[in-house]
Amino acid sequence: MDNTKVLIVGTGAIGSFYGGKLDCAGAQVSTLCRSDYNHIKKSGISVKSVMGDFHFMPYEVINKIEDYSSIPDYILVTTKVLPGIDIQKIIEPKVGKNTAIVLIQNGIDIEKPVREAFPNNEIISGLAFICVSRTSLGEIYHQDYGRLIIGNYPNGLSPKVKYLQSLFIKSEVDCTVDDNIVNSRWKKMIWNAPFNPISVIGGGVDTKTILENSEAKNLVINVMKEVLEIANKSGYNLPETLIQKNIEDTLNMKPYKTSMLLDYENNRPLEVEVILGNAVKIARDLDLSVPNLKALYSLLLLLDKNNI
Amino acid sequence: MDNTKVLIVGTGAIGSFYGGKLDCAGAQVSTLCRSDYNHIKKSGISVKSVMGDFHFMPYEVINKIEDYSSIPDYILVTTKVLPGIDIQKIIEPKVGKNTAIVLIQNGIDIEKPVREAFPNNEIISGLAFICVSRTSLGEIYHQDYGRLIIGNYPNGLSPKVKYLQSLFIKSEVDCTVDDNIVNSRWKKMIWNAPFNPISVIGGGVDTKTILENSEAKNLVINVMKEVLEIANKSGYNLPETLIQKNIEDTLNMKPYKTSMLLDYENNRPLEVEVILGNAVKIARDLDLSVPNLKALYSLLLLLDKNNI
Repeated sequence: MDNTKVLIVGTGAIGSFYGGKLDCAGAQVSTLCRSDYNHIKKSGISVKSVMGDFHFMPYEVINKIEDYSSIPDYILVTTKVLPGIDIQKIIEPKVGKNTAIVLIQNGIDIEKPVREAFPNNEIISGLAFICVSRTSLGEIYHQDYGRLIIGNYPNGLSPKVKYLQSLFIKSEVDCTVDDNIVNSRWKKMIWNAPFNPISVIGGGVDTKTILENSEAKNLVINVMKEVLEIANKSGYNLPETLIQKNIEDTLNMKPYKTSMLLDYENNRPLEVEVILGNAVKIARDLDLSVPNLKALYSLLLLLDKNNI
Repeated sequence: MDNTKVLIVGTGAIGSFYGGKLDCAGAQVSTLCRSDYNHIKKSGISVKSVMGDFHFMPYEVINKIEDYSSIPDYILVTTKVLPGIDIQKIIEPKVGKNTAIVLIQNGIDIEKPVREAFPNNEIISGLAFICVSRTSLGEIYHQDYGRLIIGNYPNGLSPKVKYLQSLFIKSEVDCTVDDNIVNSRWKKMIWNAPFNPISVIGGGVDTKTILENSEAKNLVINVMKEVLEIANKSGYNLPETLIQKNIEDTLNMKPYKTSMLLDYENNRPLEVEVILGNAVKIARDLDLSVPNLKALYSLLLLLDKNNI
């Protein structure tokens, strides 16, 4: 038994899956729950997974962060990044001097407000490449993939990053580290920035439908170019070849409904700001013209507002 | 009684309304019908109108153009402009040497294929500013406006244009003529190109909702700028002030659902090509960059394809 204390904030699909994996690795994993609180407190979390099903009974199940009995070594934040969720305020009572804040979330510049609120804490930024969804109360379905990339924000690889990696690897999660994690974040944005919004705005279309339409494919490529330009002008290093690679990889995937589309279809709020808004803001600061990103951003704001 | 023979092709809301008005003015107005054929043949068309209700019994009601007993002075085409509708082929049997082809339709470059098919016929291009819809079989509801602008394509004002205007004026339609009708078409596009697509793509939003969102309003303005640029580089003359005027006029209108949105909500095909596709093509020929129009075009293609 490992004594590492992990507190999961956001016990949805991602939090349940990776929390469960850390539990398998022997860490003391507790969960802050909302809607699933009663169910998980009583029955834990069942994970149906392509890697093998497992059951996860958190060490402590709480619905108010103040109820957590100690100060965690890691706070693993796996909520969506939405204007209505003030994650800094939520975690504040349990962020100790030595607590590393791990953000496994989508989008760009998601670490900034956390860095500002906790200037002296270690921040670990993480990217999950996974198909996983919550099927019912306390039930998670892990359909495909599962890779994780983690690294310190804004850069570097601390012992805590490496230790967290070792826990994930112990439970067979393909976890790699990156000492320039923001670069990886931009890399992921090359896919997310076009496909997530277009799948929603285009009327609920999967990746194949998008790429089969030559005009829509051009739009995808134009958005990718803009993301690449912002990243490279921000000092990161994304080769132009990534665009072709992302297109080809997507064509080789099974037709895929993006997570943003699933959110939209379930009338859940969309991560408009961190997928598009922040990128548009950075472009403006860099004096870059990104008309395609801006158009998608405007349209997605309209759709999102009408959908909740 | 006037002996002018008018054949309406496309007896939907627009065709029924303006056809009815020409009938009121004393012309011999016949209609080519599809779904409403039996009903109209028996009962004619009832128009509920802010200008005063009226009933219109066409001179001949036909469902195959070959059945029309003569050659008309005017063929009034009021169908949507869609890839599936080969209007040249439809009207061909009844286009005589002296038949003027009147196109009261939306979009840009709609006259080109007609000009190519009938190089020696007079073409009258028309723009309708009207809120009118078909409420049931043979029933039309004219809610607001009604202004018409007509002129020869590509330019000029023939006696036939002026005579048609006189008929409309006789029945109290506010009909003006324009010897540079394509310029007016571009002017109308300044409004149509942003509002029609964005109302659909933005998730079924009215004009007020669009303009209340500052990002969406910016998108509207950016699209308007692109339309203005294409028109002016094509040799037309649209002052920059038209943009502000269109925004202000729209803010002063009641919240308005565009006709494209109504089509979308009723799973009817959208005029994607003539509202956006043709403008994008002209921009390409002129070597103009129109990223916003292109983005809307791509997204609307996806939506339209999924909707029919």
